Amino acid sequence: MATEVAGELNDALKIDKSATPDMVHAEQKHKKEKKVKENEKSKKATKAKMEAKSAGAKDSKKDTGLGLTVKKKENFGEWYSEVVVQAELIEYYDISGCYILRPWSYAIWESIKDFFDAEIKRIGVENAYFPMFVSQKALTQEKNHIEGFAPEVAWVTKSGDTELELPIAIRPTSETVMYPIFAKWIRGHRDLPLKLNQWCNIVRWEFKHPTPFIRSREFLWQEGHTAFASKSEADEEVLTILEFYRRIYEELLAVPVIKGIKSEVEKFAGGLYTTTVEAYIPTTGRGVQGGTSHCLGQNFAEMFDISFEDEKGERKKVWQNSWGLTTRTIGVMVMIHGDDKGLVLPPRVAPVQVIVIPVPYKDIDSNALFGACTHTSELLRKAGLRVKEDTRDNYSPGWKYSHWELKGVPLRIEIGPRDLTNKQVRVVRRDNFAKEDVPLSDLVSRVTDLLEDIQSSLLEKARKERDSCIVTVNTWDEFVAALNDKKMVLAPWCNEVEVEEDVKARTKGENGAAKTLCMPLEQNDLPEGSTCFASGKPAKKWALWGRSY
Amino acid sequence: MATEVAGELNDALKIDKSATPDMVHAEQKHKKEKKVKENEKSKKATKAKMEAKSAGAKDSKKDTGLGLTVKKKENFGEWYSEVVVQAELIEYYDISGCYILRPWSYAIWESIKDFFDAEIKRIGVENAYFPMFVSQKALTQEKNHIEGFAPEVAWVTKSGDTELELPIAIRPTSETVMYPIFAKWIRGHRDLPLKLNQWCNIVRWEFKHPTPFIRSREFLWQEGHTAFASKSEADEEVLTILEFYRRIYEELLAVPVIKGIKSEVEKFAGGLYTTTVEAYIPTTGRGVQGGTSHCLGQNFAEMFDISFEDEKGERKKVWQNSWGLTTRTIGVMVMIHGDDKGLVLPPRVAPVQVIVIPVPYKDIDSNALFGACTHTSELLRKAGLRVKEDTRDNYSPGWKYSHWELKGVPLRIEIGPRDLTNKQVRVVRRDNFAKEDVPLSDLVSRVTDLLEDIQSSLLEKARKERDSCIVTVNTWDEFVAALNDKKMVLAPWCNEVEVEEDVKARTKGENGAAKTLCMPLEQNDLPEGSTCFASGKPAKKWALWGRSY
Repeated sequence: MATEVAGELNDALKIDKSATPDMVHAEQKHKKEKKVKENEKSKKATKAKMEAKSAGAKDSKKDTGLGLTVKKKENFGEWYSEVVVQAELIEYYDISGCYILRPWSYAIWESIKDFFDAEIKRIGVENAYFPMFVSQKALTQEKNHIEGFAPEVAWVTKSGDTELELPIAIRPTSETVMYPIFAKWIRGHRDLPLKLNQWCNIVRWEFKHPTPFIRSREFLWQEGHTAFASKSEADEEVLTILEFYRRIYEELLAVPVIKGIKSEVEKFAGGLYTTTVEAYIPTTGRGVQGGTSHCLGQNFAEMFDISFEDEKGERKKVWQNSWGLTTRTIGVMVMIHGDDKGLVLPPRVAPVQVIVIPVPYKDIDSNALFGACTHTSELLRKAGLRVKEDTRDNYSPGWKYSHWELKGVPLRIEIGPRDLTNKQVRVVRRDNFAKEDVPLSDLVSRVTDLLEDIQSSLLEKARKERDSCIVTVNTWDEFVAALNDKKMVLAPWCNEVEVEEDVKARTKGENGAAKTLCMPLEQNDLPEGSTCFASGKPAKKWALWGRSY
Repeated sequence: MATEVAGELNDALKIDKSATPDMVHAEQKHKKEKKVKENEKSKKATKAKMEAKSAGAKDSKKDTGLGLTVKKKENFGEWYSEVVVQAELIEYYDISGCYILRPWSYAIWESIKDFFDAEIKRIGVENAYFPMFVSQKALTQEKNHIEGFAPEVAWVTKSGDTELELPIAIRPTSETVMYPIFAKWIRGHRDLPLKLNQWCNIVRWEFKHPTPFIRSREFLWQEGHTAFASKSEADEEVLTILEFYRRIYEELLAVPVIKGIKSEVEKFAGGLYTTTVEAYIPTTGRGVQGGTSHCLGQNFAEMFDISFEDEKGERKKVWQNSWGLTTRTIGVMVMIHGDDKGLVLPPRVAPVQVIVIPVPYKDIDSNALFGACTHTSELLRKAGLRVKEDTRDNYSPGWKYSHWELKGVPLRIEIGPRDLTNKQVRVVRRDNFAKEDVPLSDLVSRVTDLLEDIQSSLLEKARKERDSCIVTVNTWDEFVAALNDKKMVLAPWCNEVEVEEDVKARTKGENGAAKTLCMPLEQNDLPEGSTCFASGKPAKKWALWGRSY
């Protein structure tokens, strides 16, 4: 792969090498300027790192000719910090754990929103908006629930110079905001099901190391809150939503996920059971919870007195679900697909799917060239694609290639004199740098096919890599070995809280303890007499274990 | 109008009168049940009011047979409080000044969002998301600006049980959140224009009387923040955005507005000038600021050091705008179009544009009837309309009519046996209760036409009423008389801060002081020698004055 990249890089630079001396000079100048600019941009974010590093890092940057100073496999943490900033997804902010979502990442969130919003509306969920503030009384009504969130709750205690009579919490999730109202709205069986969703910001003042998208003190999400007359309806919806989450990861973000049920230790505080889509970052060997769909059972209904009169005139508690998906999605996608040249965006969520770059030569008719670029863009745009032309005259083609590679645009179209003559364009894929000449007559269908192929290739590649990192074990020693090899571990388990706590305690180390990621919904047969890898007790389930974000 | 309503009401009830005794009985029972239920629902909100009132109010409710206990003209404040709750736009919340936006109102906000979001994207604005939190340092950097907001700022001082090192503010608006970053992003003229927008929540801990939609401590809005190389570009955008705001009010919400410039007293704190769309609530005689588009000049650029290198290599400050529109839009619409039967929704923003109601009779083939309802809905849905069938078997047609009138659905379609026989449907307008029989063959085109007519009629009616409430005066006495007559007052004005302050002081009373609403962009000629109505100094502008929300 590394050789491939290097080879493709040389190819990518060829055109500039054959450019006029002036242009090459200009390109070098701009590269330098860009380096300065990019450095300035990410100064705050990476200052400490930059200082800690020496000329070595700068050399590696020079090697690749790109904006990233570290390689993904060499220092994943720094690579990630750099790529989210340099690809203009994130800007750092002067309050720790808060990040700015720039248009390039917000547009990805909008793609996810559009998809999910349409799907849930189709199944009868309605959007609403509940206040961000929650009174102490409501927040603390469900004991287990608040215990899960209490240390992370941000409290407003003042307005202007005036102390509030009572401190007011900012929602860490909205169960306690919504459910007192559910109790008011739900009277009879005809008021059910009640299915609401909101798109909003959430605050969890975590003290763990913050990471853009993955763990931040304020983040964006959707939270669905539904109430049903029967458990079976609630159970069914839990899985319907989980399937939407799977589709967001796999069909939009090209990230393979495993659907499963959380253990008692890992389930949502106060709920009955939690289902999850779990992704995996091969480079770090860590699992990452992608989105959760909870059946809350009747516990909140009990606490908040949400009951209804059924057909027979009997009062019953409702069954409730809640489910949420956050901007973490974007971080997972970056971690999985990104490479040493920057971001790699799956076409379905790429804000720009095709970047069109003119490649001027000294004796070229630049009107014709720019005309061809516009014509090409328009053809593609009419076909419903998201296309941008980069016709800036102060950057060389080579600089632009690097820039849009850094930003992860799935396809680049280069148009030069040879292409004008031959009525074709040169198309270059971001995922594998494969190049081909496409006749204009074939443009729309070929570009559409290529985008589809990139979308499926990214998923397939990620799935292969992920699958190769799942190790099935039967004993503790195998478990520890696989864990230390950065694998996800599938093991027969007794499904007992004490055993999970024990595994956590025994694997605690500088990389964090192992925990259950989930018990996959698709369970292989457990051979009769299987015993738990950790406790030796009879095994009840295959469980997926790992270190996680 | 009152007689008209009463007449139409009788018409609306006719069908029930001709229904079987059982049905009439069922309907009365359901009316009673509904009354109880509605009362329960709005208990919290209107408890004090309900208690303060006596049988008289109940009588008036009985008179209309509807859920509202007060008439719009008799007690506007209570009418508004009731209509927003009973039409299921709002639910009250246990933190003062915070309201729940229920699906019925949130869907209206989504219509507004969809329109505006598409328009601003078309002019190159990109969406982003900036943190809700702002450090004290950034917040207080622009002195005039923070003076305008300081008393209303909510402060987070604790997370869990831990005191934060420094208190952190929640955005009352995002100038001070964004502009330190703008300074980082903007280096050269090629980084301009920078045009960002975000859809988010805002907190202003106001101590004025809170009113749903109109004044709440947390609200939703969009805020655009843009930076340009030249003042002329900024000026142009200010008006482009203002025109979008006008279109939201007039074309979507059917609310006439006046575009104008705010006085020095009323302009945005820290900005250069503020433009506004001003609406007017005839029932209370109050103006209401509908949305503002500010040119910030170079003031924030100065404070936050946002500069760029221009084509000649000179460093210059940028010119900035900011512009915002809030969920207040919905409140203005309710106040203007609502009537004694409840909400009246303009079709373009109505979550349901057509409600289809079966009218069963004892000897009717109910399969055929429900089939006709489904067929009708599907025809309309295929034509792109938002249609709902109310086929609930536990409510009578009469109850349903009242219910959907309360919720403001623009058109009701009734289908009974006569309609089945004649291959027609009965269509009833919400705005004027006009009825007509529409042949099925003509359904889609007639319903579409009717919806368009309702949309334009609502605007026209509101405009006529608004225009009749603008009084042109030349003297102080005329001014006071018009003001006390609940008019907006157009008067020649010297445009001096001291004079506006003086008018405020002189008109202070239980209804609040008069202030300038705006100086309309469309200025009639000022006759030569015109003098200010308040100061006697030479007049410079026609200004629109009034009491306001």
